[in-house]
Amino acid sequence: MADKIDRPDIKKVVLAYSGGLDTSVILKWLQTEYGCEVVTFTADLGQGEELEPARKKAEAAGVKSEHIYIDDLREEFVRDFVFPMMRANAMYEGLYLLGTSIARPLISKRLIEIAAEVGADAVAHGATGKGNDQVRFELSAYALNPDIKVIAPWREWDLNSRTALIDFAEKHQIQVPKDKRGESPFSTDANLLHTSSEGKVLEDPWEEVPDYVFSRTVNPEDAPDQAEVITIDFEKGDGVALNGEAMSPATLLEALNELGRKHGIGRLDLVENRFVGMKSRGMYETPGGTIYAAAHRAIEQITLDRGAAHLKDELMPRYAELIYNGFWYSPEREMLQAAIDHSQEKVAGTVKLKLYKGGVHIIGRKSPHSLYSEKVVTFEDDEGAYDQRDAAGFIKLNALRLRLLGRRDA
Amino acid sequence: MADKIDRPDIKKVVLAYSGGLDTSVILKWLQTEYGCEVVTFTADLGQGEELEPARKKAEAAGVKSEHIYIDDLREEFVRDFVFPMMRANAMYEGLYLLGTSIARPLISKRLIEIAAEVGADAVAHGATGKGNDQVRFELSAYALNPDIKVIAPWREWDLNSRTALIDFAEKHQIQVPKDKRGESPFSTDANLLHTSSEGKVLEDPWEEVPDYVFSRTVNPEDAPDQAEVITIDFEKGDGVALNGEAMSPATLLEALNELGRKHGIGRLDLVENRFVGMKSRGMYETPGGTIYAAAHRAIEQITLDRGAAHLKDELMPRYAELIYNGFWYSPEREMLQAAIDHSQEKVAGTVKLKLYKGGVHIIGRKSPHSLYSEKVVTFEDDEGAYDQRDAAGFIKLNALRLRLLGRRDA
Amino acid sequence: MADKIDRPDIKKVVLAYSGGLDTSVILKWLQTEYGCEVVTFTADLGQGEELEPARKKAEAAGVKSEHIYIDDLREEFVRDFVFPMMRANAMYEGLYLLGTSIARPLISKRLIEIAAEVGADAVAHGATGKGNDQVRFELSAYALNPDIKVIAPWREWDLNSRTALIDFAEKHQIQVPKDKRGESPFSTDANLLHTSSEGKVLEDPWEEVPDYVFSRTVNPEDAPDQAEVITIDFEKGDGVALNGEAMSPATLLEALNELGRKHGIGRLDLVENRFVGMKSRGMYETPGGTIYAAAHRAIEQITLDRGAAHLKDELMPRYAELIYNGFWYSPEREMLQAAIDHSQEKVAGTVKLKLYKGGVHIIGRKSPHSLYSEKVVTFEDDEGAYDQRDAAGFIKLNALRLRLLGRRDA
Amino acid sequence: MADKIDRPDIKKVVLAYSGGLDTSVILKWLQTEYGCEVVTFTADLGQGEELEPARKKAEAAGVKSEHIYIDDLREEFVRDFVFPMMRANAMYEGLYLLGTSIARPLISKRLIEIAAEVGADAVAHGATGKGNDQVRFELSAYALNPDIKVIAPWREWDLNSRTALIDFAEKHQIQVPKDKRGESPFSTDANLLHTSSEGKVLEDPWEEVPDYVFSRTVNPEDAPDQAEVITIDFEKGDGVALNGEAMSPATLLEALNELGRKHGIGRLDLVENRFVGMKSRGMYETPGGTIYAAAHRAIEQITLDRGAAHLKDELMPRYAELIYNGFWYSPEREMLQAAIDHSQEKVAGTVKLKLYKGGVHIIGRKSPHSLYSEKVVTFEDDEGAYDQRDAAGFIKLNALRLRLLGRRDA
Repeated sequence: MADKIDRPDIKKVVLAYSGGLDTSVILKWLQTEYGCEVVTFTADLGQGEELEPARKKAEAAGVKSEHIYIDDLREEFVRDFVFPMMRANAMYEGLYLLGTSIARPLISKRLIEIAAEVGADAVAHGATGKGNDQVRFELSAYALNPDIKVIAPWREWDLNSRTALIDFAEKHQIQVPKDKRGESPFSTDANLLHTSSEGKVLEDPWEEVPDYVFSRTVNPEDAPDQAEVITIDFEKGDGVALNGEAMSPATLLEALNELGRKHGIGRLDLVENRFVGMKSRGMYETPGGTIYAAAHRAIEQITLDRGAAHLKDELMPRYAELIYNGFWYSPEREMLQAAIDHSQEKVAGTVKLKLYKGGVHIIGRKSPHSLYSEKVVTFEDDEGAYDQRDAAGFIKLNALRLRLLGRRDA
Repeated sequence: MADKIDRPDIKKVVLAYSGGLDTSVILKWLQTEYGCEVVTFTADLGQGEELEPARKKAEAAGVKSEHIYIDDLREEFVRDFVFPMMRANAMYEGLYLLGTSIARPLISKRLIEIAAEVGADAVAHGATGKGNDQVRFELSAYALNPDIKVIAPWREWDLNSRTALIDFAEKHQIQVPKDKRGESPFSTDANLLHTSSEGKVLEDPWEEVPDYVFSRTVNPEDAPDQAEVITIDFEKGDGVALNGEAMSPATLLEALNELGRKHGIGRLDLVENRFVGMKSRGMYETPGGTIYAAAHRAIEQITLDRGAAHLKDELMPRYAELIYNGFWYSPEREMLQAAIDHSQEKVAGTVKLKLYKGGVHIIGRKSPHSLYSEKVVTFEDDEGAYDQRDAAGFIKLNALRLRLLGRRDA
Repeated sequence: MADKIDRPDIKKVVLAYSGGLDTSVILKWLQTEYGCEVVTFTADLGQGEELEPARKKAEAAGVKSEHIYIDDLREEFVRDFVFPMMRANAMYEGLYLLGTSIARPLISKRLIEIAAEVGADAVAHGATGKGNDQVRFELSAYALNPDIKVIAPWREWDLNSRTALIDFAEKHQIQVPKDKRGESPFSTDANLLHTSSEGKVLEDPWEEVPDYVFSRTVNPEDAPDQAEVITIDFEKGDGVALNGEAMSPATLLEALNELGRKHGIGRLDLVENRFVGMKSRGMYETPGGTIYAAAHRAIEQITLDRGAAHLKDELMPRYAELIYNGFWYSPEREMLQAAIDHSQEKVAGTVKLKLYKGGVHIIGRKSPHSLYSEKVVTFEDDEGAYDQRDAAGFIKLNALRLRLLGRRDA
Repeated sequence: MADKIDRPDIKKVVLAYSGGLDTSVILKWLQTEYGCEVVTFTADLGQGEELEPARKKAEAAGVKSEHIYIDDLREEFVRDFVFPMMRANAMYEGLYLLGTSIARPLISKRLIEIAAEVGADAVAHGATGKGNDQVRFELSAYALNPDIKVIAPWREWDLNSRTALIDFAEKHQIQVPKDKRGESPFSTDANLLHTSSEGKVLEDPWEEVPDYVFSRTVNPEDAPDQAEVITIDFEKGDGVALNGEAMSPATLLEALNELGRKHGIGRLDLVENRFVGMKSRGMYETPGGTIYAAAHRAIEQITLDRGAAHLKDELMPRYAELIYNGFWYSPEREMLQAAIDHSQEKVAGTVKLKLYKGGVHIIGRKSPHSLYSEKVVTFEDDEGAYDQRDAAGFIKLNALRLRLLGRRDA
């Protein structure tokens, strides 16, 4: 069906390689179709899979050992991508914590770095032609190296049916796991922040997501009957401790994931608008991220000035959209980040949360930099901290334009 | 402490009158201090209190029977205020469903209408000088009648201590309910959308809200162990049926309140930024509104185009702020409403939700006007509905400016 | 160079046809390459060219007379496209009055209407693959008829050099005007709102635009030494009269164009960002539109409330971007239009302007719906219209959050 | 008319003192009414007045010589206030370059610094109770020192008529200049960026501003018949040279003022919306600033990426409003500044402008960091820099949602 494509001349390509069936086929396909040397890059982003098997498979496919890159990026992922995004309280379309979107720029960054190290002229990824991930990978890659070539096999090849893919695999001695022979009932992506599931059994948005789709959280109905109270400490807008124990970014998120899993927190059934133009339905599980996001908002409540808080709220949808659409490495995302980060200097203190049956409930927050003034707000005598008569003038001048308007319309 | 204020000459004033101790004192105070005729207005906004006692108390205070207004505004409240606001997915500071804010413009509207009917030259309310409600009442009043005078006794009088207030009441034969003798441990406002609680025991934002504060919801931990699945139907952006049964706006919200109460839904512990400049901590219970808001977002997911949805998300914080600050009757709120309403024509269909232990979980949505296309999005063969190769060009042109930028910085 | 493209099966196509060399070649090329029947559509948008020659040429090319559409769209163009856009004070990138952008949706609308009338399955246009116009034409066409096919010959054919084009023309007996033989030194687009010029001699943004590029305005330095004072009347946000004489939208714009031409008004040398990702440099001449836009802002100054005016200013860049990018027929443009139009009800009155040597100077404005109150603003005694002491409370409460912040940082 | 105000106990106050009649009266009034020591602060912001006479007058009024502060703030004003604002292309209500607004925060900053130096507990200013300046002075003062007291005599005293003021002056041996005896026909404010005029003869917005109001620019009709071409160089978003000659910020603005004056540039007749709620009409003359602002936009055209440029355009109205309203020292203004400044790193190069009879015409721009690519944009063969066929996919995916929408509505 696909036209014969006039393939550019590629000498060496860095492939984002998971070791799974799809990227194994891609590896071989790149070698055979492009006749180029393939460098594999496998990242540990906390997806919860062993990475060493990927090394073996790459070697088996003939990749030179110095061309097999396996990196633990978990701390960098949380510190430089997840946390900065959380400072913005980013939620795409009001609900989605952007777990897949935020991982792509980091993978692309490493692909481009490795390409520079090994002198590759191209990078390749296993994202399909219908999704957002292709956009995110490629925009990041082009932004970081405008001269890089990008190969997206799913948009090029004719292995678009399961059968064709498996035939190709068998023909090239690629091991096909038993459970990959048939159509898998849905597709997933996972990292330390979340697991997403979409496709197949999830394609009818009226049908409830089947139980077997969930992998990161217990069903809230099966969660403990006992609520659990925790605290999270923040410094400069970032989480630094759980229940008083200092933790690195990735360690903190892992610990929150464990808590979230146990209490059934962070499931999201969403129909979202993809950048490429269609709606898709997905199930996201973001256990730790959901807890973290609630806590971050709570600590901001007492440490951010209203002007800063409202400006952040107004900028947030745009910021989230940029990340969702793949524009992490764009001047406008960086400008928004500069504004957001400027606000976080004093976002510090402790948030107390109750976790229960799928719910995250803020029950307290305190801060050495609190802007909350009991003295000013109190119903009791405030000893002159606030003169109620000022309110009359405040209202009068706020009303002035409305009154002039009312008179005009009279 | 208060200066002798040079009171304007008022002949007749319409008072927002609940029949409670505070507004009863205000009624008498207006009669004695302003020497003017008082007209009382008591609204049923679904706060769950009997209104006829207010009539008796007003009569006892010497208000003429034709000057006692008691109106059931529940349908108007939900239809013309709550639902339009919900079309915007409005949440102040990301979380607050604006239950108190949205009731004020309606009360002011009736105050001004009654003032016109009875020929009053002023309106009065019982809001204090530290809060937002004074602003909301007065901006609305001035917008609707720029020549009206507004009396805010709490900003004027010297009855600011509980003792002084009760002394005044006793001196004027106003009945003081036993439980009002002492300081109440917190202050509340209630209507069909929510109950808010603030002050006193809630003033330390680190302290968990005590159980006795809640009046509209059971504790999630005491909610049924069995989840409950419901459906809500929408037409033109507004809810019209529960579990397939058609309902008027207020009836629907009441029914959702009952469900929310039972399942412990809609509690919000918030530190928010008041328009008058300080932070305050409140506990909101919005049982039905929380369910409704989640359902509205869900039906929009399949019926709103991305452009409309994202524009709504970007406008929302401003819109919510306007309502919170009291600018319901402002040109800019009306402009935003015009934009929002324009988007809601096809927001119709059914949302399926699971209620469980404080959580509202969307599990399905369908619509005769759905924009979700299984055919386009499918992982299966889409029969040409989408050409994956288009994505290459799409990405290339989106990347062009980033590549030019990358070359510049090189 | 172009691949052999697998052309879809087209039976009848409606071509946006100017009668010039390029679209004449396209006409013939569609007939020969697609083997389909071509319907021509020629619009009078005030570009200042005779349209009847286009009829003759179309006939000569074998187009059936009932398939030759020539429409005078000038009034519709100004009334339904230019004026609504002007209500928004739309300027792309702060400066550009969107003269080309705003004409495209109307042309596409007629193409789609004619396609329905004649039963055509495709539309075609003569815009190139590097510009914005292809996007505007096609987004509009797809929005109005999602099943239409669009042919963009410039992206498909191999006639990309001048020589190839002229060879094709000569081979097919298409008359090649003498001045089209050589490369024209720049490219233009014209309609009642503006003439744009770009390309070739304009491609170096450091080089001043040569005199011979300008066609719609005299050089300011050659404009009359005598300033001219005019008035424009507005009703509901739209211009209705010049110097007191009532005029239709197109007539008014034509008259303003004449004034603008004479006084050298509306030249804009701009480097702008195209939607397709690159920067381009153009020279725009918008004589009447420049005058009109200044006058519209001036009448808004006294008739729009601050809240409405500031909201409009904040929405404007987005609105202008949507039009520039071709999203006229999008839900979000319509939502913004609904908001904007809501604000224009009382935008009525008279603006007095002085035109001089390229400049438009507002020198006065008045309105029956003016919100300007001399009584309130006056430096003289205002008889109690404004109580200066209210300002103290207004400032105090606006300052409260800043003071709390200052204390925190202390 | 004014109530006897219960004046707070002030020991020492720093007065923003021009040496003119009004602030001389205020000086004396503070000494007599507050019985406090007065410290005077006179700033050279480029208003074009001698400052030494202020010293003499202060001494004559009994101010100790160590309590007389006279500072040349011109460089600080332009470098730290005007230029940062210009980086944002800030225009209030689309037109006003904020010449008065931007000077107030600097004056307040010095008032607060001096108060700290001399141990004063209050500051005072001569702004009236109807204007914006009182707000700007006081918000800045409170933000920088939340415990400072602010005295605004015009809101307190009973010298609101000219006669009362002059009587007070004569009673206290304050010299009354002859031309200040009568009512001045309008009121002005001046600094290096602009001169504003308002009040009295300007109060009818239909009446043309009389010639004698202008002080900083010649009438365009009297400007040279010969156009003048200049260049301005930028580095990191700020102007650094005129016609190739390096200049400090204030020197550059002064030189541009001279050019603007000569060519009649920068007059603006505006009806604007004050923060305190009413509309006012003013005449602004911003000769150099108008030239500078046009040049800054022009250099951004070739050096800013589209994403950055459009984000700046969308943030600008909010940013300008914050400055206008007096919120320079607010977290949200600083956040926006952080975003804006982030974009300016490569805003460097040279802009060529033609000045003629009130008009500023950009005629060229070049930059070592230009993002404009002749190679990509050219109408000529671009040697593969841009593949026109990419546009097809770009359009198709941008259209997808509109087509799905079109099908839904069908």
